[in-house]
Amino acid sequence: MVKKELNIAVLGFGTVGAGVVKMLLRNAELIAGRCGKKLSLKYIVDLDLKRDRGIKVPDGVLTADALQAVNDPEVNVVVEVIGGVEPAKKFIETALRNKKYVVTSNKEIIAKYGLELRELAVRNKVNILFEASAGGGIPIINALAGALAGNNIRRIYGIVNGTTNYILTRMHEAGAGFAEALKEAQALGYAEADPTNDVDGCDVAYKLSILAGLAFDSHFNYEDIYREGIRRVSAVDIALAREFGYVLKLLAVGVAHGGDQVELRVHPVMVPQSHPLAAVNDAFNAVFVEGDCVGETMFYGRGAGELPTASAVVGDLIDIALHYGLDGVNPALHFQPARKKLVPVGETYSKYFIRLKVRDETGVLAAVSRVCSDHQVGIKTVQQKDASGIETELVIITHAVKEAALQAAVGQISALGQVVEVSSVIRAGL
Amino acid sequence: MVKKELNIAVLGFGTVGAGVVKMLLRNAELIAGRCGKKLSLKYIVDLDLKRDRGIKVPDGVLTADALQAVNDPEVNVVVEVIGGVEPAKKFIETALRNKKYVVTSNKEIIAKYGLELRELAVRNKVNILFEASAGGGIPIINALAGALAGNNIRRIYGIVNGTTNYILTRMHEAGAGFAEALKEAQALGYAEADPTNDVDGCDVAYKLSILAGLAFDSHFNYEDIYREGIRRVSAVDIALAREFGYVLKLLAVGVAHGGDQVELRVHPVMVPQSHPLAAVNDAFNAVFVEGDCVGETMFYGRGAGELPTASAVVGDLIDIALHYGLDGVNPALHFQPARKKLVPVGETYSKYFIRLKVRDETGVLAAVSRVCSDHQVGIKTVQQKDASGIETELVIITHAVKEAALQAAVGQISALGQVVEVSSVIRAGL
Repeated sequence: MVKKELNIAVLGFGTVGAGVVKMLLRNAELIAGRCGKKLSLKYIVDLDLKRDRGIKVPDGVLTADALQAVNDPEVNVVVEVIGGVEPAKKFIETALRNKKYVVTSNKEIIAKYGLELRELAVRNKVNILFEASAGGGIPIINALAGALAGNNIRRIYGIVNGTTNYILTRMHEAGAGFAEALKEAQALGYAEADPTNDVDGCDVAYKLSILAGLAFDSHFNYEDIYREGIRRVSAVDIALAREFGYVLKLLAVGVAHGGDQVELRVHPVMVPQSHPLAAVNDAFNAVFVEGDCVGETMFYGRGAGELPTASAVVGDLIDIALHYGLDGVNPALHFQPARKKLVPVGETYSKYFIRLKVRDETGVLAAVSRVCSDHQVGIKTVQQKDASGIETELVIITHAVKEAALQAAVGQISALGQVVEVSSVIRAGL
Repeated sequence: MVKKELNIAVLGFGTVGAGVVKMLLRNAELIAGRCGKKLSLKYIVDLDLKRDRGIKVPDGVLTADALQAVNDPEVNVVVEVIGGVEPAKKFIETALRNKKYVVTSNKEIIAKYGLELRELAVRNKVNILFEASAGGGIPIINALAGALAGNNIRRIYGIVNGTTNYILTRMHEAGAGFAEALKEAQALGYAEADPTNDVDGCDVAYKLSILAGLAFDSHFNYEDIYREGIRRVSAVDIALAREFGYVLKLLAVGVAHGGDQVELRVHPVMVPQSHPLAAVNDAFNAVFVEGDCVGETMFYGRGAGELPTASAVVGDLIDIALHYGLDGVNPALHFQPARKKLVPVGETYSKYFIRLKVRDETGVLAAVSRVCSDHQVGIKTVQQKDASGIETELVIITHAVKEAALQAAVGQISALGQVVEVSSVIRAGL
């Protein structure tokens, strides 16, 4: 018995919630045609019933009572776009226990509790979908769980945070410093008043734990993911990056090693200008996936924003509508227990950009080179910048080296008498 | 009642068939884990039972009898990777009548007969999937039918033919002429002995009719699509493209107009070097999709080849496995009757690159400019190349102009006494 109409409750009438409501109302006919069912808005739940979101909401739909919505037997699907852990998690659990499908954009909940919520869904013969939790409107989770699911995924990496990408783009384009670019992003509403979650890479780590979980069939605790943010990136680094043919980006990187080992890391990378990621600017996101059969693929689009995120939520609703009432438990969105181990970051390999402030004396380069060679850190390029007479700047680009060796070499270099400071150590190249 | 195993018959043991078999054998455990069912190879059908494909095929699976396979009640899914219309179409029809799901990579069959085969599938409560028919391993059909299906699609355009993209890449990189680059592509097996299907844009038109059908909810006859191939592209055009900051690509372009009008065209375009499509080289494909909610998205990957195409076929098999036995008719892969009209190409707008051979006399530029201005063809750049004393070359780049006006202007220019020939007229910019 296939239903011709699904009743939907949207929890949260903020930016994403308003986008979902707009999209369901504006494209109602088109969506019904494509999925063969009408998607009806039965509830929109928010504590703020007054604020004008610029949408004409159908009568009797708006309410502050979330429990009424998640307990109403007529509701088939609950859309959770509140954000944060509580009370969102409690509402999701109640909905699943009531055998309602759930669609969420909540990366924090999925990264932290995805496995247990999925189990709850399976026990209740429903499903929880979360395309909007990583990559905004880009259908990357769908691709990993479906069209690419025949592949052994070898690498997944890319730009998955629009706020930091906007900040870095402004630093590149306007020569702005980090603090200035952050302020601009805050003024435009791209960054929050407390920007920690974005600029320190937490948001990226949530998303990487979700994407890597699907790509590598294992749960990964997001707190175990190696993480560097962009607070320490300076205007000088950006200018030098450009000079050496790079663009600086904050990347999520996942690499399958042999056996049960996986390498997951979040940090700034100098991306060669010729690489497609170098052209991903502002709030756009892009994710590369390398499979053993499909080879290299890339998915690009808006990583955040009202309607792009709504597009992913509504895509999940359409997926549910297409299969509703058919024992919808889809094993492809396969949260897995922790089955694989993370490779310690010290054992991973990267190319590096190193910027040193040194005394303008003969023998500096020789001393630095000797330390590098002692630690098997191969140097690709070294360049001395204009000298002040007392101090000068040395820029080194290395070949791919083991992280632990690089750190040891950098430690020894910073202790050299001729070295005033190690100004920057940034991964360069993919 | 959900089955734990699906029996699969692969029709055609050529390049794609061998890829599908390799992938199903190599990644059997991973696939079973992700879709919750074992995908078992029951038949591999090919007339050539002798040739070594470098695969250890399970005993008793290889046969020359396609009818046995499509009529065997134990077969659940038929994979058609034979290519061409007959006998592939007959086998697909028999399989559907026998209530077997069908997966095909056959763009010619889907472009020409997709609508009627889909109706046959619906009548028999099964489905026909065709992710591999456009964009090789890129899950673009899945995205249009699923994750992006809540969007009103405004534009879809990109590079969807690997053979011509390889030829154009070689012309750019090596300065080779068309004939030479084609020969090289043929030697490497990228182009066929009779390259018409690729170089004249037929293959692109098939794929555009499939993608546009999903994006714009209407059937479009591929023969009605405006089409120019790359035979007339010269090494001089490529060199000048580079000089003016462009890379020449063969594009499929679909644009929704107001009402029921859609603009579909296949032709070479000079793509600005800063555009992501300019960096899509060799046999890679990339498709841009612009939706009213998701905004701009891009999908990139290998557009052809044994394993990338197999990845798309196996993705469809996994999709079927996830929903098998559940009345699998998915309205999202919605072949539609012809509901929308094509905009005549004369009414479409493009920027143009025009190369003229002219007499080296004063007044040429004035005469050409006058003709352009008479036809409302705005000139963005005009440049005169080194003069020989008798003849010289004039390169013009226009603003966006109406195709019919451009053609009228070009006709009048070619009739000017000072103009020796109109050497090239190529769209420039997106």
